[in-house]
Amino acid sequence: MASSSSSDSSAPQTPQLRKDSVTNRWVIFSPARAKRPSDFKSKTPINPNQQQQQCPFCIGHEHECAPEIFRVPPDNPDWKLRVIQNLYPALSRDIPAAEEGNNSDSGRVVVNGFGFHDVVIETPVHSVQLSDLSPREIGEVLVAHTRRIKQLMSYDSIKYVQVFKNHGASAGASMSHSHSQIMALPVVPPAVATRLGSMKEFFDQTGKCSVCESNSKDLLIDVSAHFISIVPFAATFPFEMWIIPLDHSSHFHELDSEKAVELGGLLKLVLRKMSLQLNNPPFNFMVQTSPLGENASQLPYSHWFLQIVPQLSVVAGFEMGTGCYINPVFPEDAAKILREVKVSPSE
Amino acid sequence: MASSSSSDSSAPQTPQLRKDSVTNRWVIFSPARAKRPSDFKSKTPINPNQQQQQCPFCIGHEHECAPEIFRVPPDNPDWKLRVIQNLYPALSRDIPAAEEGNNSDSGRVVVNGFGFHDVVIETPVHSVQLSDLSPREIGEVLVAHTRRIKQLMSYDSIKYVQVFKNHGASAGASMSHSHSQIMALPVVPPAVATRLGSMKEFFDQTGKCSVCESNSKDLLIDVSAHFISIVPFAATFPFEMWIIPLDHSSHFHELDSEKAVELGGLLKLVLRKMSLQLNNPPFNFMVQTSPLGENASQLPYSHWFLQIVPQLSVVAGFEMGTGCYINPVFPEDAAKILREVKVSPSE
Repeated sequence: MASSSSSDSSAPQTPQLRKDSVTNRWVIFSPARAKRPSDFKSKTPINPNQQQQQCPFCIGHEHECAPEIFRVPPDNPDWKLRVIQNLYPALSRDIPAAEEGNNSDSGRVVVNGFGFHDVVIETPVHSVQLSDLSPREIGEVLVAHTRRIKQLMSYDSIKYVQVFKNHGASAGASMSHSHSQIMALPVVPPAVATRLGSMKEFFDQTGKCSVCESNSKDLLIDVSAHFISIVPFAATFPFEMWIIPLDHSSHFHELDSEKAVELGGLLKLVLRKMSLQLNNPPFNFMVQTSPLGENASQLPYSHWFLQIVPQLSVVAGFEMGTGCYINPVFPEDAAKILREVKVSPSE
Repeated sequence: MASSSSSDSSAPQTPQLRKDSVTNRWVIFSPARAKRPSDFKSKTPINPNQQQQQCPFCIGHEHECAPEIFRVPPDNPDWKLRVIQNLYPALSRDIPAAEEGNNSDSGRVVVNGFGFHDVVIETPVHSVQLSDLSPREIGEVLVAHTRRIKQLMSYDSIKYVQVFKNHGASAGASMSHSHSQIMALPVVPPAVATRLGSMKEFFDQTGKCSVCESNSKDLLIDVSAHFISIVPFAATFPFEMWIIPLDHSSHFHELDSEKAVELGGLLKLVLRKMSLQLNNPPFNFMVQTSPLGENASQLPYSHWFLQIVPQLSVVAGFEMGTGCYINPVFPEDAAKILREVKVSPSE
């Protein structure tokens, strides 16, 4: 077997395939292709001071947006964040939710595109990024996510809610004003079904939760009272990071406001470390949670987490064809580098 | 149910989810987000005349490359194509192939990174693109792929061979000289396993091959004697295209040289139509075939095809989180547009 000697990141390493017990995905770790792990930098850094004229997400431009769902604080023109409808929703809340229509003869399975696609404007100020907010303010953004999910749970036909953030044009953000998105789907999406199946298989084999088991010293970045940040053992992307609640919990929306502030602090730290180490890269973050309405039998093996992915590489033909990814940075090396990034309180 | 009225692409359409019976993937079709289907153009077109100084893939620079595996014609300094080792292989042919090492207690599944990663230099001339070659020359490239796969089949530990092409830097090509890649893997990759499972399920339910059933008038682009080009019913990406052999066949490497020339002609037509309609976009193509060493019981439901994906959109947080994709162009509309693109013989 190849050795992933991780204590010395300059040691010669041979390629290795790893399969993640959470995502059930094979990843090829191929250090021969890469520069040193510490030399990874974004070639398209975000310019935090870019100003967009007439941005509809800026305070004072509320009338240019699609309808508001709620704001914090409520009924206050001097708002801190707003949850609004997406002006260009991928799914429509205005058509009937329909059962799956399976024309099994032709294999054409079709479902009406009923669903919700909302936007969280995370700050009233255009030049402020999520990582500029205080832990308390980031916590308020996370609580806005959980509050909206709880509203969407009242629709029986909504099976899963995906919370995500695209930061930077090349990471898919069409607006530069800091925002995240909430998409409520009428189906359990394939990556979620695969993840749940993989976590269940691990639990059936070991009696343990695969996400709880992700906590290991060589992959750890930082800890707080109730959360850890890690690089996952079979990280799909270089410097991918997960923030995991230490207390086993299936659903992100069960996060309480006190822990949300703590999580906000750890997310801020992760984002600042990523920005310092990787030259302020475009990034995505995704809340990986459980389907709505899952019964208690799923609780032992399903565990929510935040996934943060800096954009440093391109998804190309090999990845599209196989679903396998090639990661040039061993997770132990990425974790060591991120552990050691010094973030000063004033930064 | 929403109607996907496809005969008139300007008709108002509501979002629709479709599940592909081949890939088992949900795709959201969301025309409200898009410009008209015919207005899709690449914003980063390839410049076909770019010249790279000192390109190691150019004729006369063979000594700058990793070792050659074979060339066509053989032993001829005036070669038409060369198959060589990748100078920066993602997998190593120089380490022992090892069995899966499953530390089931920790969930850390690891396999030695044994495998092959080869490059096919498709032309000796830097400025020539694949679509500039004649059908016979493209057929020779495809035959080189099949010949290399047959060589790799002699390794018991190789389970799957992925043939793919990245064209354009933003589609993942690190070299602008026209080339494709062949990666031989010690595992059956996840997207392939999912595809086979989905095709088997469809066969078990209907007694039919899901790929054979993809042939329908509203999705057809072009036909030749033994192949069709289509837009798949649940295309993951806008203007994604498949070329399918009409005769049911599990493995790409069973393609004979006569049919390879015919396939070369249809691939050339597809690439030229894509270039004309979409402003010469970066693209990927992937051969979707069956694992090596599959027994005959798989033949009824598994059917190889070429997948061609122009790069017109960004994979972002929603897609990474859910494995669901949002496609702003209904496949029937894309097929109609591509059907009607006029390609003159001299172009």
